[in-house]
Amino acid sequence: GVLGSGDFARSLAVRLVCSGFRVVVGSRNPKRKASLFPAAAEVTFQAEAVKKADVIFVAIFREHYSTLCDLADVLVGKILVDVSNNTEVNHHKESNAEYLASLFPACTVVKGFNVISAWTLQSGARDGNKQVLICSNNQEAKRTVAEIAQVMGFTPVDMGCMSSACEIENIPLRLLPAWKIPIFLALGLFLCFFTYNLIRQVIHPYIREQKNKLYKIPIEVVNTTLPCVSYVMLSLVYLPGVLAACSQLYYGTKYRRFPDWLDQWLQHRKQIGLLSFFCAALHAVYSLCLPMRRSHRYLLIETAVKQAVEKKMTIWVEEEVWRMEIYISVGIIALGLLSLLAITSLPSIANSLNWREFSFIQ
Amino acid sequence: GVLGSGDFARSLAVRLVCSGFRVVVGSRNPKRKASLFPAAAEVTFQAEAVKKADVIFVAIFREHYSTLCDLADVLVGKILVDVSNNTEVNHHKESNAEYLASLFPACTVVKGFNVISAWTLQSGARDGNKQVLICSNNQEAKRTVAEIAQVMGFTPVDMGCMSSACEIENIPLRLLPAWKIPIFLALGLFLCFFTYNLIRQVIHPYIREQKNKLYKIPIEVVNTTLPCVSYVMLSLVYLPGVLAACSQLYYGTKYRRFPDWLDQWLQHRKQIGLLSFFCAALHAVYSLCLPMRRSHRYLLIETAVKQAVEKKMTIWVEEEVWRMEIYISVGIIALGLLSLLAITSLPSIANSLNWREFSFIQ
Amino acid sequence: GVLGSGDFARSLAVRLVCSGFRVVVGSRNPKRKASLFPAAAEVTFQAEAVKKADVIFVAIFREHYSTLCDLADVLVGKILVDVSNNTEVNHHKESNAEYLASLFPACTVVKGFNVISAWTLQSGARDGNKQVLICSNNQEAKRTVAEIAQVMGFTPVDMGCMSSACEIENIPLRLLPAWKIPIFLALGLFLCFFTYNLIRQVIHPYIREQKNKLYKIPIEVVNTTLPCVSYVMLSLVYLPGVLAACSQLYYGTKYRRFPDWLDQWLQHRKQIGLLSFFCAALHAVYSLCLPMRRSHRYLLIETAVKQAVEKKMTIWVEEEVWRMEIYISVGIIALGLLSLLAITSLPSIANSLNWREFSFIQ
Repeated sequence: GVLGSGDFARSLAVRLVCSGFRVVVGSRNPKRKASLFPAAAEVTFQAEAVKKADVIFVAIFREHYSTLCDLADVLVGKILVDVSNNTEVNHHKESNAEYLASLFPACTVVKGFNVISAWTLQSGARDGNKQVLICSNNQEAKRTVAEIAQVMGFTPVDMGCMSSACEIENIPLRLLPAWKIPIFLALGLFLCFFTYNLIRQVIHPYIREQKNKLYKIPIEVVNTTLPCVSYVMLSLVYLPGVLAACSQLYYGTKYRRFPDWLDQWLQHRKQIGLLSFFCAALHAVYSLCLPMRRSHRYLLIETAVKQAVEKKMTIWVEEEVWRMEIYISVGIIALGLLSLLAITSLPSIANSLNWREFSFIQ
Repeated sequence: GVLGSGDFARSLAVRLVCSGFRVVVGSRNPKRKASLFPAAAEVTFQAEAVKKADVIFVAIFREHYSTLCDLADVLVGKILVDVSNNTEVNHHKESNAEYLASLFPACTVVKGFNVISAWTLQSGARDGNKQVLICSNNQEAKRTVAEIAQVMGFTPVDMGCMSSACEIENIPLRLLPAWKIPIFLALGLFLCFFTYNLIRQVIHPYIREQKNKLYKIPIEVVNTTLPCVSYVMLSLVYLPGVLAACSQLYYGTKYRRFPDWLDQWLQHRKQIGLLSFFCAALHAVYSLCLPMRRSHRYLLIETAVKQAVEKKMTIWVEEEVWRMEIYISVGIIALGLLSLLAITSLPSIANSLNWREFSFIQ
Repeated sequence: GVLGSGDFARSLAVRLVCSGFRVVVGSRNPKRKASLFPAAAEVTFQAEAVKKADVIFVAIFREHYSTLCDLADVLVGKILVDVSNNTEVNHHKESNAEYLASLFPACTVVKGFNVISAWTLQSGARDGNKQVLICSNNQEAKRTVAEIAQVMGFTPVDMGCMSSACEIENIPLRLLPAWKIPIFLALGLFLCFFTYNLIRQVIHPYIREQKNKLYKIPIEVVNTTLPCVSYVMLSLVYLPGVLAACSQLYYGTKYRRFPDWLDQWLQHRKQIGLLSFFCAALHAVYSLCLPMRRSHRYLLIETAVKQAVEKKMTIWVEEEVWRMEIYISVGIIALGLLSLLAITSLPSIANSLNWREFSFIQ
């Protein structure tokens, strides 16, 4: 059974019908709404729909839950699936599912399907996340809903008892919260270093010697900026651990909470580290592109022609040769090690390591 | 208990014995077959084997299920594990497990272990997929079989009730079905563009100016072909979404099914996108290799010598310099963004994103 | 309830309090120890603590389990969670959890939380592995502990019945055991080939022609060494399969166990293959860096100047051009194929392939 006639209710009914379930839709105005639902779904009055179904998806807004109170008698003993979402994180004190459960104590309430969009329901679980997070205080009801999700092509994930409902309801509102600060940090650092390098490599030679080096902006200036950002970010990964250790030594205990800013910082280390790796990888690609450029070619030919005309046969500055060889080989090794760190931060790799192995690699 | 004496039955018996289970094998001709099984497994007549065991693996072909009907009395109340596979997708109307259950209504039938090869059973779950998909209408029996799988070193995955058996039986027959069309598409596009570039860069100059540019085939022609393929594939990822939206606007509803070809296309977007990324990455590697080539070196020296002899000191075409700098930097940024898309298509990353985050990144 | 006052007991109490549980700590000397625990946790005598709690975490060493025997009466019917670890793999005959269960047959023992460090408990499950492996012979108890783990922010993983306890206790002691032999193998091979290439490219020319080529050590010598290591490692991946097939043909059966060394070798193939890919990838990066070096630039200019002075206009050795073009394009294709192999060895990708697809790709 499905209560409601909104977008989500319709997509849900379509999907349930496609997966071979018998679907009955409860509406206040079944005649007008019937055309919106697939022909195989029976659209009738709410009370009748509830009587015919054992599992009822409540696809209406939290604000209208109380309108269902008339149906309290027929709802006794049924499984109610709360699929609702909020518009803001922690908008209400108690989660929608717990509120529904408090309104209908004679029903078994299961939270689920809210992490799935109407679009995904409609088109089938094609790409992205196929997980349906489910929680309930009743094992049997949870299992029933999990099996429905399975038949619909989703992967049910048991999130435990009803107290997880609040967490499940907050998930669809999340937009990469752990990445915001690290990304702004990286952009800020990039801007600072880019300005500095722009002045040093382009503006200063122009003012002092009237040399036009503007062509350096898209690649060379960016390429000297990226490793600076990468280094600073990498040091920001390891600094908070040192600060935390100092704080523990100072207070003589490791059971004291860290100040909030340090706690936040410790929590963002993984993201900062991955951005540091991203900058390092970009720096590697930019550096490898240097000899492909026209400007590199022209400068090389210019030097060769000048030497040929002046009959200088060989120029071989041993120090410059060695410096470059060592720069490059150390750079490659550093990138290789950072890649290892980045790979172990993939969830499926991290899950196959125990903490001894994980900290060994880190 | 194991019924059957084929390859799978023997591997299963070996593995069960190695995992510390007491195994009894039921055979029609126990004396002759005993030598095939490990010494620790007891080989006896079918009826006796069934009496001694609570969980019975039915390792015989679907065609021979009916020969077990003599054992119906002793099988009452036992758990039968159907491990059979088909030779064709959807060969029979009902799955093997459901057919077995209909033959022995007094038994509890569990589908499982069919996704594991005899070789994997034999050698232990070393690499590749360790998951054993299990389904049954009886929770208790499913749990028992899941625990056996766990002790054997596999990862049991609960696939819900018996109606999933058909799906589970089709899995081992699958050979990357979602990749076939995209790969042929990529190969076709590659051939077309390769031919065009071959004519333009090699055959045309040879015919018109008798210049031998054959050396360009392995790298330069391939390298100009790859980004064309990549671009066309990338546009093929985004085109069906636009067509779907148009179709929805035209019909004024989003609850109408798309035509089959569009539906198929929408389902292959992820694979097309990954192939597009693969071509782009290859193009990047090929481009980076350009300055390593002998031919590049010879052409460079030739230009330098010509200029030196003609005493032309400097050639610096500002436009060409800028064009190259911009090409390269835009290319690197595009590759970086495509890499992000490719990483989020890894199953373990996709599962940690909600659909809002997933569509934001896409 | 938590029994014990060590580091793990304290972290556990902190975490449980933070997750909203009511915690009672049992200690032999509650007055002295109370200050160590968070204020919200009640610290009392062991017997009293046990009476008040349904689920009791036994955070004391295996050696002291017998001191709990005085509490046997009050412990009847409680769930005991064994969180202990050993200091050596397979130190005792039976696992700690099974030993605890044998001491208190009237309790339900659940093994769990031992894979989590005190530090992870303290700071929350931030990065790395969030899985809590749980096993028990009692389904209900296992579910209760799993839900506690969920609320604490961890991912409970059901590992089946008590016989898995030994395996779970060995996990935290593991330090990449499968990687040790392959890594030493790779280092050994690298050293051999490095010495050979050092003699050939640097020492030999110095002795014979007094040429100083020391600058080649950091990049060129390493770069000719890496593909040798990669090739040998790759052949070591495929060799044991051939040996195993030969052994099977020789003995005429595939049900005979392989000798131990071959078995070990077969088990390390994945790691050897990944190291082979790592060397190949490093070789690619090193090769791409070659034209960036000062030495490359100087040699190029030197050749150009020499030719210009001698008025030799063009040098174009067709054979050398072709050899290089073919080297590079074959190398790129090989790297692309190896990348595919490496990607399918990611756990989350491997789990989405059936064995037919997996062996097709391999």
